[in-house]
Amino acid sequence: MNNNKQSDPKRKKFTVRHPAHRGHQQGRNHHTKKNSAPHAQNPQYTQKSASLQTPKKREQHRTPIRIIPLGGLNEIGKNMTVFECCNDMFILDCGLAFPDSEMPGVDIVLPDFTYVERNADKLRGIVITHGHEDHIGGLAYLLKKVNAPVYGSGMAIGLIKHKLEEHGILNKVSLNVMESRKTIKMGCMAVEFINVNHSIPGAMGMAIHTPAGVLVHTGDFKVDFTPIDGGPIDLARFGELGSRGVLALMSDSTNAERPGYTQSEHKVGESFDKLFTKAGNRRIIIATFSSNIHRVQQIINLAAKTGRKVAVLGRSMINVITTALELGYLEVPKNTIIDIENMNQYPPEQIVLITTGSQGEPMSALTRMAMHDHKKVNITPMDFIIISATPIPGNEKHVTKVVNELLKSGAEVVYEAMYEVHVSGHACQEELKLMMALTRPKYFIPVHGEYKHLVKARNIALEMGIPNENVIIGSIGNVIETDGSYMRVVSQVPAGRVLVDGLGVGDVGSIVLRDRKHLAEDGLIIVVVGIDKATNTVVAGPDMISRGFVYVREAEELMAPARQLMCHTLSECSIYELREWTSLKTKLRDALSDFIYSKTKRSPMILPIIMEI
Amino acid sequence: MNNNKQSDPKRKKFTVRHPAHRGHQQGRNHHTKKNSAPHAQNPQYTQKSASLQTPKKREQHRTPIRIIPLGGLNEIGKNMTVFECCNDMFILDCGLAFPDSEMPGVDIVLPDFTYVERNADKLRGIVITHGHEDHIGGLAYLLKKVNAPVYGSGMAIGLIKHKLEEHGILNKVSLNVMESRKTIKMGCMAVEFINVNHSIPGAMGMAIHTPAGVLVHTGDFKVDFTPIDGGPIDLARFGELGSRGVLALMSDSTNAERPGYTQSEHKVGESFDKLFTKAGNRRIIIATFSSNIHRVQQIINLAAKTGRKVAVLGRSMINVITTALELGYLEVPKNTIIDIENMNQYPPEQIVLITTGSQGEPMSALTRMAMHDHKKVNITPMDFIIISATPIPGNEKHVTKVVNELLKSGAEVVYEAMYEVHVSGHACQEELKLMMALTRPKYFIPVHGEYKHLVKARNIALEMGIPNENVIIGSIGNVIETDGSYMRVVSQVPAGRVLVDGLGVGDVGSIVLRDRKHLAEDGLIIVVVGIDKATNTVVAGPDMISRGFVYVREAEELMAPARQLMCHTLSECSIYELREWTSLKTKLRDALSDFIYSKTKRSPMILPIIMEI
Repeated sequence: MNNNKQSDPKRKKFTVRHPAHRGHQQGRNHHTKKNSAPHAQNPQYTQKSASLQTPKKREQHRTPIRIIPLGGLNEIGKNMTVFECCNDMFILDCGLAFPDSEMPGVDIVLPDFTYVERNADKLRGIVITHGHEDHIGGLAYLLKKVNAPVYGSGMAIGLIKHKLEEHGILNKVSLNVMESRKTIKMGCMAVEFINVNHSIPGAMGMAIHTPAGVLVHTGDFKVDFTPIDGGPIDLARFGELGSRGVLALMSDSTNAERPGYTQSEHKVGESFDKLFTKAGNRRIIIATFSSNIHRVQQIINLAAKTGRKVAVLGRSMINVITTALELGYLEVPKNTIIDIENMNQYPPEQIVLITTGSQGEPMSALTRMAMHDHKKVNITPMDFIIISATPIPGNEKHVTKVVNELLKSGAEVVYEAMYEVHVSGHACQEELKLMMALTRPKYFIPVHGEYKHLVKARNIALEMGIPNENVIIGSIGNVIETDGSYMRVVSQVPAGRVLVDGLGVGDVGSIVLRDRKHLAEDGLIIVVVGIDKATNTVVAGPDMISRGFVYVREAEELMAPARQLMCHTLSECSIYELREWTSLKTKLRDALSDFIYSKTKRSPMILPIIMEI
Repeated sequence: MNNNKQSDPKRKKFTVRHPAHRGHQQGRNHHTKKNSAPHAQNPQYTQKSASLQTPKKREQHRTPIRIIPLGGLNEIGKNMTVFECCNDMFILDCGLAFPDSEMPGVDIVLPDFTYVERNADKLRGIVITHGHEDHIGGLAYLLKKVNAPVYGSGMAIGLIKHKLEEHGILNKVSLNVMESRKTIKMGCMAVEFINVNHSIPGAMGMAIHTPAGVLVHTGDFKVDFTPIDGGPIDLARFGELGSRGVLALMSDSTNAERPGYTQSEHKVGESFDKLFTKAGNRRIIIATFSSNIHRVQQIINLAAKTGRKVAVLGRSMINVITTALELGYLEVPKNTIIDIENMNQYPPEQIVLITTGSQGEPMSALTRMAMHDHKKVNITPMDFIIISATPIPGNEKHVTKVVNELLKSGAEVVYEAMYEVHVSGHACQEELKLMMALTRPKYFIPVHGEYKHLVKARNIALEMGIPNENVIIGSIGNVIETDGSYMRVVSQVPAGRVLVDGLGVGDVGSIVLRDRKHLAEDGLIIVVVGIDKATNTVVAGPDMISRGFVYVREAEELMAPARQLMCHTLSECSIYELREWTSLKTKLRDALSDFIYSKTKRSPMILPIIMEI
């Protein structure tokens, strides 16, 4: 199954002509979406390219391919892209997103799979860049609707296995481990896996060999020359692809706002080293992302070096560490890891506790420790706690709350950027430039970011000499087509978000969310009236009940006249009006709403219920 | 009314003996709250102090004073502190806090005024450090319950005036403008105003002269040697007080996590200067805090210099600028400010628009522009937008959303820290040390911060040689007592938060909030049953209505069996059970709750309503 297409000289259709088109008038240039705006090319870049170029000639027609992002653009999360050519289609990543404050009660957010379901017969496989939730978290839901073999690094497949098991569909899916520089055929296309660095082991970029040319998708990446394991990003291969001609680069844009380079994971180890000394005879507790196995490795190494035992807390941390151990991504000296149950057999200075909760997640182990709500760990002044993470936007207040509570127990807490206990997993501006310089793409599609990140990545591409009209800032659902001579958005497919709440997938939509937000802001008042259908007379009520509005026992002076108003409104209704329940409800709602607003300047949801007796 | 007590040599009772006690065994040392823990004193600091000390002698008994924080500790917001001595009491600041995500629908949060109301007869006045909402926003609510003269800088009083007018109580309150180095008597205490730098003009620290000694309260402060107006912080006076003996320092701790010094407001002007050039022929839009008049002044100066007119948008921005103009805090060259209505008479390169919305507030002018929802401003690629602020924790996602939308309209948006378009108004670590070094207090009470900030400020105090047992990290409601020889928490008064929702003050409590959160997370299902009281039989229903749970039209397969279950549950009830409505409701609720959870893993609020027919 794992064929290295690169070593097969006969596979002509994956060998792309040299991109002799950069900076030259093109025959099909009128196809580009915006070709009216003049652009200033970076002369240095153009010259460099020119020296490698074959003589200019008219583009030949090639089979067009289509790139369809279904998630990950204009958002951080639920990354998913469809690649399509002729009658073949494959998917790159299938992640989830976490709900924001606009989606109360929602557990996770999935991409809309409609387009994939409708074209299930074309689907040749699913390739996974790495095992983070925003790249694999939607897979189990997708695989319940369509079936296709899944390809990824050992680590990614290990984590996916666990997920499919939880969903009870492991036995129906073909999971395939891929090595770096190996290629897998997807009908008339082929996908080559290329090692990159990231905050999880086994992260891959992809070279997508198509009849129209080679597309490079970086996956989530950074450049780490001294990674803990797995070797540095395969810059040579990206460079080789660039020399032979890359049609388009799809690049991680998460850190496009940040100048310079992202630091090596090794930096965190150096900081930990100093902090282990500072901790002295106290217990060390480190909260970090469960998937950051390299960081866990560094903690374990330091623990072994300083004679501490390592205990692990938090469901996801235990899952990931178990998977990493099984697959050999983590090396643990004998007798270093102990069961949390045995932790109290050791004095504080002989313990390192690795835990989840670095984002202040309300149900996580660290949060429960902070709130004195954890069965096995009690925080005292003998604890030295390191939060080895940066709050993801939206989590700042949760993290602060946890820090405050830990400090109140007398523990020392290291959480600030100044201690360098965290480095990002994503490339900063200079690394993005490096990737562009190596791959020298004709077209550039920034991915994996909010709109502001995509814009920053585009600006970097422009600095690197890629013409503005060759950069596409897409949206999910866009069908981006290229035959090598043009690239443009040609149409739109269904795309959006599907909300998962409990067992329900997609049954919470915009109306339900709107109601939830309304209820949260102002609460509700229910007015119940019983009407005798035969005589059209009020025979019961009006009764009024409220929730989330005011504490009724203390608000009788508001609720009593409201009830009178409802009685009065009903008494003024004609028999005809009492028969037309829709308009009767509106009448009750409007009267009560106006009254309540005039008295309180609030607008609770008002729910008139008419019972037929 | 404004007496400069400092120039009155007879006012002996405000002159405190030199604090000859630092680092010495004290007669009443056993009174300190925690005197068991040994502490390492900073020898340098002790020696410095020692060189100024009079010979050691036993403490004399002095009239004790009580410091009662009612807000601003373990939180950012609703700053309020009561100072009490014998039969006299005054209040320092009376602010509001903004609700967090745990308080849906709440407009603002006030301190609990109970203690002040109960002791209204003692109240001699209210002193205000500066005019920010978290220091004056609760004043109108307090002044509706108790009356007392208010003292503050011209700017603070100007802003308070506007607020009291809105609340319709301006004519019943005595408002008094204080200058720096002026003192106002508060019964047996007196409060001296001392100029400090902050992000609003007219910010003051306070020296509180009491029979027990001098307390210094910094207010919100930073050290700006090159402020735009009003002169640098009066370091000399703080030093003078320190030389004469400061009993306790209460210091702003907001930036205690940040090393170094906060930059001068001038830095922002330099950045703006460069950005005005970069903007070229585009319209410039700058969003900032309305109260940062010094920043507005710099924008106006640059506009005048570059031949641009200034238009102002946003209610609070217009209010504050109007107040500042009236009081002479803002100087505007003739014909520089134009009405927004006339903006379109000028080309983009002749316009600077100053607006609210730097925190991405949903109803603000900038947000509405971003969402294409503003009547007067349409964002285009001819706009150069500067967000001159740092997101307050919790607002990051709002700001990002606004930035994304502005970028989508083609505007250039400057929002990152790297452009230095914002500086903080609060002292960083080195400035806190400077304040401690000048005032050399015996006791230290960090204020204005979350717990983590207070802890950092304490650590700085320890570094400066203040003994650990002389630092009090308090909580709101604590009664901190000192007679100069000891300082400790002696009791507790009512303190907490009072929620304002619309016109209601305090009618939204924990039960209402809990219901709102439940409704937001899972929605609700209402079950209505009509029971004939005479016969105890079900004569109507059960009817079921849901909101915020599932979209019922698409969930009939869930709701139909749920309705059947309710019918079945009712049919199994005996006549006795149909008479006991409380237990009947519980029975219906439990049955439906179990059913819904088993089918959906969700727990909507279930509200059984029984109507008497």
